Amino acid sequence: MNDDHAARDGDQPIDSQRRKFFNRAAVVGVGGVAASLAACQKQESAAPAKAFEPTASEAKVAVVPAAAGARYDVPPGQLDDYYIFSSGGHSGEVRVYGLPSGRTIKRIPVFNIDPMVGWGITNESKKILGTKPDGTLRFWTGDTHHVHGSYTDGTYNGKYLWVNDKLHGRIARIRMDTMECDRITKLPNVQGFHGIFPDKRDPVDAAINSTTRVFCGQEFHIPLPDDGHNLEDAKKYGCLFSCVDAESMEVRWQCRVDGNMDLVATSYDGKLAGANQYNTEGGMIFQDMMSAERDSAVFFHIERIEAAVKAGKFGTIGTSKVPVVDGTKAANADPKTALTCYVPVPKNPHGINTSPDANYYVCSGKLSPTATVIAHDLLLKWFAGDLKEPRDAVVAEPEIGLGPLHTAFDGRGNAYTTLFLDSQIVKWNIDKAIAQFKGDKSAQVVVDRIDVHYQPGHGYTSMGETKEADGRFFNSGNKFSKDRFLPVGPLHVETEQLIDISGDKMKLIHDHTAYPEPHDAIIVRRDLVKTRQIYNMDDFPNAVKDMKDVRVERKGNKATIYLASVAPTFNLPEFKVKRGDEVTIVLTNHDKVEDLTHGFGIPEYNINFIVNPQETKSVTFKADQPGVFWCYCTHFCHALHLEMRSRLIVEA
Amino acid sequence: MNDDHAARDGDQPIDSQRRKFFNRAAVVGVGGVAASLAACQKQESAAPAKAFEPTASEAKVAVVPAAAGARYDVPPGQLDDYYIFSSGGHSGEVRVYGLPSGRTIKRIPVFNIDPMVGWGITNESKKILGTKPDGTLRFWTGDTHHVHGSYTDGTYNGKYLWVNDKLHGRIARIRMDTMECDRITKLPNVQGFHGIFPDKRDPVDAAINSTTRVFCGQEFHIPLPDDGHNLEDAKKYGCLFSCVDAESMEVRWQCRVDGNMDLVATSYDGKLAGANQYNTEGGMIFQDMMSAERDSAVFFHIERIEAAVKAGKFGTIGTSKVPVVDGTKAANADPKTALTCYVPVPKNPHGINTSPDANYYVCSGKLSPTATVIAHDLLLKWFAGDLKEPRDAVVAEPEIGLGPLHTAFDGRGNAYTTLFLDSQIVKWNIDKAIAQFKGDKSAQVVVDRIDVHYQPGHGYTSMGETKEADGRFFNSGNKFSKDRFLPVGPLHVETEQLIDISGDKMKLIHDHTAYPEPHDAIIVRRDLVKTRQIYNMDDFPNAVKDMKDVRVERKGNKATIYLASVAPTFNLPEFKVKRGDEVTIVLTNHDKVEDLTHGFGIPEYNINFIVNPQETKSVTFKADQPGVFWCYCTHFCHALHLEMRSRLIVEA
Repeated sequence: MNDDHAARDGDQPIDSQRRKFFNRAAVVGVGGVAASLAACQKQESAAPAKAFEPTASEAKVAVVPAAAGARYDVPPGQLDDYYIFSSGGHSGEVRVYGLPSGRTIKRIPVFNIDPMVGWGITNESKKILGTKPDGTLRFWTGDTHHVHGSYTDGTYNGKYLWVNDKLHGRIARIRMDTMECDRITKLPNVQGFHGIFPDKRDPVDAAINSTTRVFCGQEFHIPLPDDGHNLEDAKKYGCLFSCVDAESMEVRWQCRVDGNMDLVATSYDGKLAGANQYNTEGGMIFQDMMSAERDSAVFFHIERIEAAVKAGKFGTIGTSKVPVVDGTKAANADPKTALTCYVPVPKNPHGINTSPDANYYVCSGKLSPTATVIAHDLLLKWFAGDLKEPRDAVVAEPEIGLGPLHTAFDGRGNAYTTLFLDSQIVKWNIDKAIAQFKGDKSAQVVVDRIDVHYQPGHGYTSMGETKEADGRFFNSGNKFSKDRFLPVGPLHVETEQLIDISGDKMKLIHDHTAYPEPHDAIIVRRDLVKTRQIYNMDDFPNAVKDMKDVRVERKGNKATIYLASVAPTFNLPEFKVKRGDEVTIVLTNHDKVEDLTHGFGIPEYNINFIVNPQETKSVTFKADQPGVFWCYCTHFCHALHLEMRSRLIVEA
Repeated sequence: MNDDHAARDGDQPIDSQRRKFFNRAAVVGVGGVAASLAACQKQESAAPAKAFEPTASEAKVAVVPAAAGARYDVPPGQLDDYYIFSSGGHSGEVRVYGLPSGRTIKRIPVFNIDPMVGWGITNESKKILGTKPDGTLRFWTGDTHHVHGSYTDGTYNGKYLWVNDKLHGRIARIRMDTMECDRITKLPNVQGFHGIFPDKRDPVDAAINSTTRVFCGQEFHIPLPDDGHNLEDAKKYGCLFSCVDAESMEVRWQCRVDGNMDLVATSYDGKLAGANQYNTEGGMIFQDMMSAERDSAVFFHIERIEAAVKAGKFGTIGTSKVPVVDGTKAANADPKTALTCYVPVPKNPHGINTSPDANYYVCSGKLSPTATVIAHDLLLKWFAGDLKEPRDAVVAEPEIGLGPLHTAFDGRGNAYTTLFLDSQIVKWNIDKAIAQFKGDKSAQVVVDRIDVHYQPGHGYTSMGETKEADGRFFNSGNKFSKDRFLPVGPLHVETEQLIDISGDKMKLIHDHTAYPEPHDAIIVRRDLVKTRQIYNMDDFPNAVKDMKDVRVERKGNKATIYLASVAPTFNLPEFKVKRGDEVTIVLTNHDKVEDLTHGFGIPEYNINFIVNPQETKSVTFKADQPGVFWCYCTHFCHALHLEMRSRLIVEA
């Protein structure tokens, strides 16, 4: 297999030492389609680690001369050209980077607790996150994988971002004007919610050329409902594909499928959504999950599903009232009425991405060294009954390298696929791949390769998931950084590597760091993002708008403190409550200057939050400790910041 | 005052437009010693914000040409020269950056909950953080301000870092080999624990030339004890200076003082520790806190304090057993026996820093445009009874600019002070300042000024808090970033600006970003940091060392699951418990390859944590929901990462 692969690599010279190493390691680590499963597993347990062990000298291979790097610098006082909106993996947050600098310009707390802003601490954020009957948070962990933006006319409209929580089956929405999470919805009867993608126009109403739905794939098959019955009966296990309303954030419908769904992609015409599937075997253990030679990409006919829901052809699961339609293979044998289409692809695929010309879906092999190109028009043909087999929608399946995961596009007909095992990005031409698939043996599919460091997961191009793909940058989200940065103990930061793809050859520009785990991201041109830099006080129903409203109000054992901040003072120098009171503090920041944020920390009461200019937030707690507690500004605001305090006095 | 200040600036040309703006703004905002307090306050409420409003054109002033920046780049595959260990303000975490790249190479969770690593979720981390009787965390907010490292021979020994929590009066220790927090101690009877500094050698045992104590200043004066009595009696309020044992992390003693303490500094000979003090007035409200024309820097004679403790000359406060000595002014009138020395300095000072030649403390004026230089040998002279007044230890008090906060050093006799209101760093010469103070009117104290963007708080130089100060870099931690980065909504990221100080003129190199709040930091040469990159399995008493130990153990309704991870499997494909069980999962990562970390997430149970190579962690939860829960690896590890799962089956 090494030799086979080396032959494929003939299209360009690469560092042979390093290449040989990775190829060997890859075989030891996982093997391709050619290796038998049994052999593969034996080898894995013998030396599972080798795939991740480049030597020190190999780490230096792809260095760009420092001088060449200068043109990608963002000098002091200059702004970046793009935003990167990046999921934060199991940190539970979303991050915003500037590109090309790689600087983190925001963390957006979503499924985590963030004591800096008070996320998970203020009443407003707790309401979004969801609480238990006792008022404490239900969850403060989450696993964000994919972040995607809302579309108009096939490009970002700058309104919303959505991100999944794989751990607790939740979808969160972020307002792009304030870059804060405003809604979280828990999907019913879903475990392992992994892939997520907004639609790009309405499949029913041609006049609506914007995102109105977000699709959510379920990865882990579970008993439906998962209520403690049918624990071991694989036949009772299933997965749901969910459709969430972009505005109301309510679940509109779900579609039950065979197999585990991984990533999600949508078409530009709004008609189809697709998900790559591994474990179509429905296996419970590792070995069973990779026993079949082929898995699927499943495509959903949105208009038909919504018609079925409208016609009442659905059931419900457990206590959920969400309509669930049947998208299993058995129930959708007739293409002309089918809600779903299962296209066979090589085993355990990973990733599905729509090309910016709207014509293709590319599904990567993961355990196969191939990418599968599926034509959108042929899928529609199948749904019309005019194509014999779903597999006939496959128009190319080039061999591109080991461990292909995700594919991005430059808008010039080239695809860029991350190769996890090869630790490379491979650039290949879609038209050439189609020609080769048709029999053109001279077609040079692979255009270029570049080493990344190490083991790339997602890769994404500037504007690459829109019709405005501009082919300037590719960013590689690498899962191992090893020797790329100063050592910081056993837990490594991850690497993100910026690659210039504007020319024929890819060029490595920068290594940036990302706190684990920089899972997936989108790269958005800066002119598409219009933020509000100061809040409107009227947007907060509980705002303390007038200085004369600053006061302490008491009803029974409930005390509400209405406070205002104007640097460097809180407008009540002290406020008294009684031990045992339920205390609510409402704080409005009256400062109007951009960036003049105040913090409010209460010692011993585990409370800290910030109020940005013209913003109002509140916290509620039980005053169970008597004494004097200096509430102080925790967000540096003024030369007299240290003096900006108020006294909470809890009388015994 | 504008004119006075402009005259002082004659030593170098600066952008006159911008300068004029900031001076005007500064006067409007806070005023200097010359402005009357009443006038100052009136002006503040009229236009409190102006101090923070540079115009767009002003933001571009100090740009270094892109080409010049190239030499500070860290090209792909190259390592940084220095570590920056930075406190994370009210995010509760500590951060590690590489210098000069400015890349964040680690977040160290300390006082916060970090769902990525499982900090605040695993049993081990909960034990360090502290829990309530019901097993839930006591606090998950914190406000870290200052991080400092352990010393040997006057430089960093790479063993520990310490960081304060201002919000809940806690001190945390971080092991530098693993860069993880290993101990947290709550200081008794302390509120607003702000300044922190380790000693540099033993004041008693000359043979001990390493850090053995860490000193902690208290900023907020409270009733002692703060138990709901004496709520309004200012005379019963006080502040404690605490000494924590570097190894045991126990509080050795406390010393009660007059006034609020802010920052802390220590001498290189181990004899003295000092803290700058504002609000020596003991005021409860803003206006009272700045009424006196002078506050103090208070110095502690460590040997005498420890002798007093040994001699039983101490009391205790409330339920705490920690010995408290009396360091108030009234009790320490005789220098020869005094435990403390109060040196008068201009009103509301901020910051105290020890020069690397071990000779001076520099205390900044904040509301005065001066820095006060206090000679260490003269303080010792005062304690010996050979100096008349504490103020006689002041050897210089140059006017350096508006809003001076913190001072760093280059080891060549120059000091670099952040000017909050001027938004500048001023470089000044200590010897020249002393000469000027002695009457040399020709002494050119100020050597250089550079604009920063905007409102700098702490600034620090490479190795500047050690005897090995090397004068290469100064990093400015700025509190306002405004227009320096792409807009991200009302909450701004902060700027850290890297300045080359190796030449005569300071040179601005990079703008980096820092999630609020990048409070203070130290810059450590990389050769001084020796990390462990893989754990030793033997260090974990609960390690599941042998694959045959993987099992489910049950005692009554307590189920303990012993698990091992080897990519891409957890070595139990499933484990069953009963609804209502208290379940403990112990997971040992058997992978030995650097960077091969696994995660363990349990859907619906709010659990996620990671295990680094050879590490063991555990979690405990009540299995209150029946069903199938796919525990999965949340930290990308292998091509078959998605397949790396185990089933928790909770029987109804």
